[in-house]
Amino acid sequence: MNEQKPGRENEIFPPSGFCQVGIVVKSIDETIKYYEKVFGFGPFEIREVDYPNATYYGEPAGYRGKRAFFYLGPIQVELIELKDGKTIHEGFLKEKGEGIHHIAFQVKNLEEGKRKAKKAGLKVIQGFARPDGGGFAYLDSDKIGGVVFELIQRSPEKG
Amino acid sequence: MNEQKPGRENEIFPPSGFCQVGIVVKSIDETIKYYEKVFGFGPFEIREVDYPNATYYGEPAGYRGKRAFFYLGPIQVELIELKDGKTIHEGFLKEKGEGIHHIAFQVKNLEEGKRKAKKAGLKVIQGFARPDGGGFAYLDSDKIGGVVFELIQRSPEKG
Repeated sequence: MNEQKPGRENEIFPPSGFCQVGIVVKSIDETIKYYEKVFGFGPFEIREVDYPNATYYGEPAGYRGKRAFFYLGPIQVELIELKDGKTIHEGFLKEKGEGIHHIAFQVKNLEEGKRKAKKAGLKVIQGFARPDGGGFAYLDSDKIGGVVFELIQRSPEKG
Repeated sequence: MNEQKPGRENEIFPPSGFCQVGIVVKSIDETIKYYEKVFGFGPFEIREVDYPNATYYGEPAGYRGKRAFFYLGPIQVELIELKDGKTIHEGFLKEKGEGIHHIAFQVKNLEEGKRKAKKAGLKVIQGFARPDGGGFAYLDSDKIGGVVFELIQRSPEKG
């Protein structure tokens, strides 16, 4: 672990930028059916995602998947279903089974967040960046406490 | 699963009542040290908890533990460290290791929430209630999607 104590200006993400909880599931369809019926969650936005230029522990590793998004109060919940490609989500599902995978923070500048994370001794274990700067980076913050934190920079057109 | 589709008035908890993410950790001290230093999280409120009249899958099973609370934006994060007694947290740590254990919803009336959950075919896998009505109930909502949901009724004096 790096010995530097970051001040506000050096922080990797603003703690108040907590914007998303990510859940790895076997089947988005089954989970939505259950969540709608029993808990009244929704509406759900379903997307097929394709990240051909993603990285996995720094190496190129494109992947595709299915996602569903809904809100609990101000927080977005992401349901994650595997399709193909090597991902940290696949490793999580194999090792731990379905469940809550990550906590994400919205940042203004993903590259800057990644730079600060690296300076603090953290690795990007999976990431993807669009030409417009939007994208995400999952960090190996789970070595103590078990929680993967993700940085997300929203693309202008995606909001 | 129960065939009844709950309407707003029958819902177990309001989805907008999402108030807490719970994380099971091996050591609260180590996790706080890491979270403070690397991510600037905090301040942390540390509590020793004792639930002598708790239940575990419906059977009496008191337990004690250490907790730390901090906020990410509007959401409370609970760090959970085991002390003694049989708990779902212990099972989670053994089976999956450290990580995000539950999502909690604040309810006005815990008993009513438990009654509605039971009606929807859910079981309380761990619970505790104070004489003032405050308390909590963890549900076996993890059978599809892997996420344990918790109902929390705050005690008047605890806020």
